[in-house]
Amino acid sequence: MKASGSEALRAAYPFASRMHGVQSSVIRDLLKFAQRPGIISLAGGLPSPFTFDVEGIQQATDEVLAHQPARALQYGLTDGQPALKQELARLTSSRGAAVTEDSLVVTTGSQQGIDLIARLLIDPGDVVVVERPAYLAALQTFALAQASLRTIDSDASGACVEQIDAVLDAAQAAGHSVKLIYVVANFANPSGATLTRERRLHLLQAAVARRVFVLEDDPYGELRSFGASVPPLIALASEVPGAADWCGYLSTLSKIVAPGFRLGWLALPPAVRDQAVICKQGMDLHSSTFAQEVAARYLATGRLEARLPSIRAAYRERNEALAAALDRHLGSRIEYNRPEGGMFLWARLNDPVDASEVLQHAIEEGMIFVPGSAFYADAPDHSTLRLSFATPAADELDAAVQRLVRALDRSLRRGG
Amino acid sequence: MKASGSEALRAAYPFASRMHGVQSSVIRDLLKFAQRPGIISLAGGLPSPFTFDVEGIQQATDEVLAHQPARALQYGLTDGQPALKQELARLTSSRGAAVTEDSLVVTTGSQQGIDLIARLLIDPGDVVVVERPAYLAALQTFALAQASLRTIDSDASGACVEQIDAVLDAAQAAGHSVKLIYVVANFANPSGATLTRERRLHLLQAAVARRVFVLEDDPYGELRSFGASVPPLIALASEVPGAADWCGYLSTLSKIVAPGFRLGWLALPPAVRDQAVICKQGMDLHSSTFAQEVAARYLATGRLEARLPSIRAAYRERNEALAAALDRHLGSRIEYNRPEGGMFLWARLNDPVDASEVLQHAIEEGMIFVPGSAFYADAPDHSTLRLSFATPAADELDAAVQRLVRALDRSLRRGG
Repeated sequence: MKASGSEALRAAYPFASRMHGVQSSVIRDLLKFAQRPGIISLAGGLPSPFTFDVEGIQQATDEVLAHQPARALQYGLTDGQPALKQELARLTSSRGAAVTEDSLVVTTGSQQGIDLIARLLIDPGDVVVVERPAYLAALQTFALAQASLRTIDSDASGACVEQIDAVLDAAQAAGHSVKLIYVVANFANPSGATLTRERRLHLLQAAVARRVFVLEDDPYGELRSFGASVPPLIALASEVPGAADWCGYLSTLSKIVAPGFRLGWLALPPAVRDQAVICKQGMDLHSSTFAQEVAARYLATGRLEARLPSIRAAYRERNEALAAALDRHLGSRIEYNRPEGGMFLWARLNDPVDASEVLQHAIEEGMIFVPGSAFYADAPDHSTLRLSFATPAADELDAAVQRLVRALDRSLRRGG
Repeated sequence: MKASGSEALRAAYPFASRMHGVQSSVIRDLLKFAQRPGIISLAGGLPSPFTFDVEGIQQATDEVLAHQPARALQYGLTDGQPALKQELARLTSSRGAAVTEDSLVVTTGSQQGIDLIARLLIDPGDVVVVERPAYLAALQTFALAQASLRTIDSDASGACVEQIDAVLDAAQAAGHSVKLIYVVANFANPSGATLTRERRLHLLQAAVARRVFVLEDDPYGELRSFGASVPPLIALASEVPGAADWCGYLSTLSKIVAPGFRLGWLALPPAVRDQAVICKQGMDLHSSTFAQEVAARYLATGRLEARLPSIRAAYRERNEALAAALDRHLGSRIEYNRPEGGMFLWARLNDPVDASEVLQHAIEEGMIFVPGSAFYADAPDHSTLRLSFATPAADELDAAVQRLVRALDRSLRRGG
């Protein structure tokens, strides 16, 4: 198959209007630099390979193929394999949210969970409220849904939910239908912030009062390094009359078992869950039964619970190492809030530079990060940057920050 | 999490307008009957478990986890794992279409391939041309895309492509933008028909002349029971100037390796492929790398090619057994075209009955099939039915047809 003149043709193809506003992720595009020899990447959100329990996954696969090969290799149910849903209900309940298997939909990673909710709820022009800054891949998905984005600020305590009412009022006054509030409540990507219990309750109250669905995306909740955990929104919903009907929970095995399974899950109120299953039928029939059955078997062994303390300890060590390196090498030239867990530290440069320009020098110095401007649905702050401490070891994090300092100095010499 | 009064709330949730016209698949809903003890199912399109090379898949998994665990368990590239794309390019080329790895996008089953193309091209109200009857799950996906469907008839030689011009003229005269022609060219689901070479060329000419993209969905091409294969549209495109820019090819590992991997692939012209990758980022980032690496390793062993002859022979035996049973037990009470391969036989009852009503009796008699009306985008023919010979053994197919006769007789006694 040969096709000619792709550039000329791009305009000629009758692409749908949703494709006009969607661009490739700058993070995924940055990953090609991450593979260069000698580069230390603080850009990606890739879990460190030491978290992969290869032996346990091998054993689980052996057992599945020995005892249930046809179940793992055949078509499956759209909402997910019963064995996996049982484990995911248990896992979700262990986080304080007592969900039933009937409320779950297994998704092809949490990305599909976001896309699924967007397709369920959003007509072009409908309003989605996100934090500023917000998870980049969610912004992409909402762009694909042709949503009209509104933002609320985020600080060290997470989304400033007291801004919600004003944002919703303004959107509704402008004739928009407000459909969804999307939040990452634990160690948010990119801000690293954790939403306080008070703010979670406030958010639920607003959701019920305004009849707007809230989706909590919780990929990192198990990776708490410091402090006490705060219950998920669907757990706190029992304290706010009516709230259980207006919130959903999304999580993933990517950060605690392996991204390669590409398995996430949604816990939803019944009517939303039923529609989600119908929508997912048309999207991919179901997620990989092979991956689901292996993951189910793995989770049933209890090996995850046994490993989580050491995974948490490793991320905590890196979290501390990155903060120490920033303090040591940059001092007052940088401001940041110390994340209580997860993989990301969000920082603001006090030097008069644009982080995108610093990145160009940083690549030459041998490190990469993601300029913070990529994470803003509106009014980007060009002095911000997202530093991931998930993948490099502690000494590499220190070396990376030293390289960042050199890149910063070069940017300043070039005139900011 | 408790939610109250789901029925009352269903109307209250502000679902997107795309959800109003989408229903759960009757086939997936029928599957619950397939699991009843004693039922012989001619309803599903499930490959027979004997086609699963459990030993080969176990070996491939062992090798992947022993040698490349981090690659199989980590995040991957949106367009697919390079090792799998290499194998899929080879497989596609062996079907007569010399594609490059650069033209491929790995999808979460062919269902996601259909959804991906729909999202790339279709704004609400845009026209998609399908066969009548057409693949049910594709109709669902086009409904989700809010496409306006137009149909062309299908006969024993596949889609009646000479109707295309009139259909496109009428749609354009009505002010619609015609975006896509979707066709299953080999042993179509549900019609079993294979599109002739002449019709394939005619279709490509129409696509170029009208600047409408043609997607060929080819899940069954390797399962030819009789006769000589016809090249895929993207192979024949070299004979029609400009056609390479206006057609794409979709296939899947579900019918030849295992549905449980949930892996399909698209071969696309460059500009369409680039947009498809951007769209897929927002949909699920990528398909399971674990499944992809295992499938790649499996395909690289050559075991598939060694097994295909016996898989084809088994389906041929069932194809013949079903036809013989229909001839033996129903004779002139049924009409059908003998499929040259694949999994489905499409039939029309000459008795004055509705196949949906016959199904109710058939369930009681201990067999199920899919009433043909489910496969029509317009003007359903209620005397049609789809019989799958993929799963039952030859003697079960004979028993199922005897039960179908009893169900038919009961329907007639009840007054048709």
